[in-house]
Amino acid sequence: MPLSTVLTLHATTDTTLPNTMGHLAHAAFLALLDAAAPEVAEAVHGKGENKPFAVSPLTVHREPCPVGREGDTRGASRTAGRGRSVHGSRFTVHDRAVALAAGQECRLRISFLDDALFRPFSEAILTLGQPTIRLGKAELLIARVTCVGSDEEPEARYETYEQLVNRLPCTVDRAPCTAYREPCDADAHSVHGSRSTVHEQLSFRFTSPTAFRVRMAGGERVNWPLPDPVRCVRSWVRRWNEFSGFPFEEDELCAKVEGGVGLARHDLRTRMLEFPRGRELGFVGEVDWHLTKHALADEPFLRQLHTLARFAFYCGTGIKTAMGMGTTVCRAP
Amino acid sequence: MPLSTVLTLHATTDTTLPNTMGHLAHAAFLALLDAAAPEVAEAVHGKGENKPFAVSPLTVHREPCPVGREGDTRGASRTAGRGRSVHGSRFTVHDRAVALAAGQECRLRISFLDDALFRPFSEAILTLGQPTIRLGKAELLIARVTCVGSDEEPEARYETYEQLVNRLPCTVDRAPCTAYREPCDADAHSVHGSRSTVHEQLSFRFTSPTAFRVRMAGGERVNWPLPDPVRCVRSWVRRWNEFSGFPFEEDELCAKVEGGVGLARHDLRTRMLEFPRGRELGFVGEVDWHLTKHALADEPFLRQLHTLARFAFYCGTGIKTAMGMGTTVCRAP
Repeated sequence: MPLSTVLTLHATTDTTLPNTMGHLAHAAFLALLDAAAPEVAEAVHGKGENKPFAVSPLTVHREPCPVGREGDTRGASRTAGRGRSVHGSRFTVHDRAVALAAGQECRLRISFLDDALFRPFSEAILTLGQPTIRLGKAELLIARVTCVGSDEEPEARYETYEQLVNRLPCTVDRAPCTAYREPCDADAHSVHGSRSTVHEQLSFRFTSPTAFRVRMAGGERVNWPLPDPVRCVRSWVRRWNEFSGFPFEEDELCAKVEGGVGLARHDLRTRMLEFPRGRELGFVGEVDWHLTKHALADEPFLRQLHTLARFAFYCGTGIKTAMGMGTTVCRAP
Repeated sequence: MPLSTVLTLHATTDTTLPNTMGHLAHAAFLALLDAAAPEVAEAVHGKGENKPFAVSPLTVHREPCPVGREGDTRGASRTAGRGRSVHGSRFTVHDRAVALAAGQECRLRISFLDDALFRPFSEAILTLGQPTIRLGKAELLIARVTCVGSDEEPEARYETYEQLVNRLPCTVDRAPCTAYREPCDADAHSVHGSRSTVHEQLSFRFTSPTAFRVRMAGGERVNWPLPDPVRCVRSWVRRWNEFSGFPFEEDELCAKVEGGVGLARHDLRTRMLEFPRGRELGFVGEVDWHLTKHALADEPFLRQLHTLARFAFYCGTGIKTAMGMGTTVCRAP
């Protein structure tokens, strides 16, 4: 089942993290997995585009750390002030190197799409005495792994694939959104109960650089850094079909998205990430999608769309979601 | 020939302009034209999508006005401070009502795609004694019409259609841009001479809300507020083909854009405009387009693309360019 865990980490020494550390987190995760179940780590490493996990960017808490040595947090805070966070009080590491003081607390979100992967991962955490992960030169002690969130850790949560599919009601009550022409101020969170209304809008926040790979004439492959509904949905449905056991018809779904989902309010900008093997351009920001009346009348479509929008929290969007790109939160479904 | 004129206007009394005044500027322009050549005004009014002129948003100068009564500019300045300008020192009227003091200077840019329209317009200005235009309740005296720009008025300029086509060299020197993965810092303005290099990027600034109308499944029409290269080029080439006398093959060109133009750095957000007949969503901001190696090897395509990108300054992009939407500036070609 889709499961999002948050690792609470403490730096063991004063150290600096490079500006883009998704590939390091990816490597650290595989090393941890390798310690418990080498064959699983090997299989995951060999997988192509649809990896059974996603890694979200490291966040560094700006408050003084409650455990470990009381570190000098000025370095991190100063960096945080310069960073361009879309996380509110936290600093998301896209843009600049981050200085960590010994004892400084960070968090890393890892989401799992496949139970066969979470089991050896949790075993590795439990069986290793003082488990640490290494992000480049930085050694970080795993102080806590949170699987079930609270108000304090809303990013740790899980749902079964069945729950994701069945979350929507069979009848669609039209919510009082005012169409694609202005932002939705309605209670977008009212749909978390067992019965709910289906809004005419879906609101997404892309908190780490997100892009799609597009093949151009002549074969050149470029990054497409915009939240086109069809490209987003295609990226989600492929992962959904790989892991859920409830496959959706990809092309039919994408045709319905093309004819029934428009763009409403957005606020988007590009960010460049530096990976060892080259740079990746992506976008961050927020976008509301608008569903046409025609789409709202198609309940099977609505059910699939809302299911995938919610699944995006676990699987991420677009390329390199196992290396910190494409972290996605949907507000509405 | 494409001709961009800037009208310098002085408010005759203390007044307030509504937040969206593109439709008022459109009506004022037609009224002026009607005074000189009613049959031309009638013909323009009946034209559909590809109007032979475009109206850019009114800009209000924040400095005290050098002519007319020295007005109290505090109202305008205060409003300007709250506005979200993409014009630098000027305030672009998208978001809020603007208070104008008597004597306050504003500017309105009107561009013409057809000589048959500019002639009666300039006659109207010359023959009317003290020509004024009325934007809603505001009466504004036309103090000056600038047709040939200077450093002070770079938005007033003209080029013939022949000049636009022939501006590019036949041979393409690859400029030192670093592909679609980072912004272009090269001298993008070096291409204004008779010989020039063709950059791998085209940089656009959309200074008033810009959108395309898209028909969805079921017939609903929605605004698409993103600078997709194909949608932009289709919008330009239709106007080009209507007025230039050098028609380009629209579908062939758009297929080449789809296969050869990607998106690079961008910074985009939506704005809502209130028109009397309803609201229009559009985007403002900046975007760089990246040309693939394959596209750069296709010189006829490059010539057409750069021609249209430059033409966009005159014709605008997308819907309602005759009512203040879609104001576009291309930095590179």
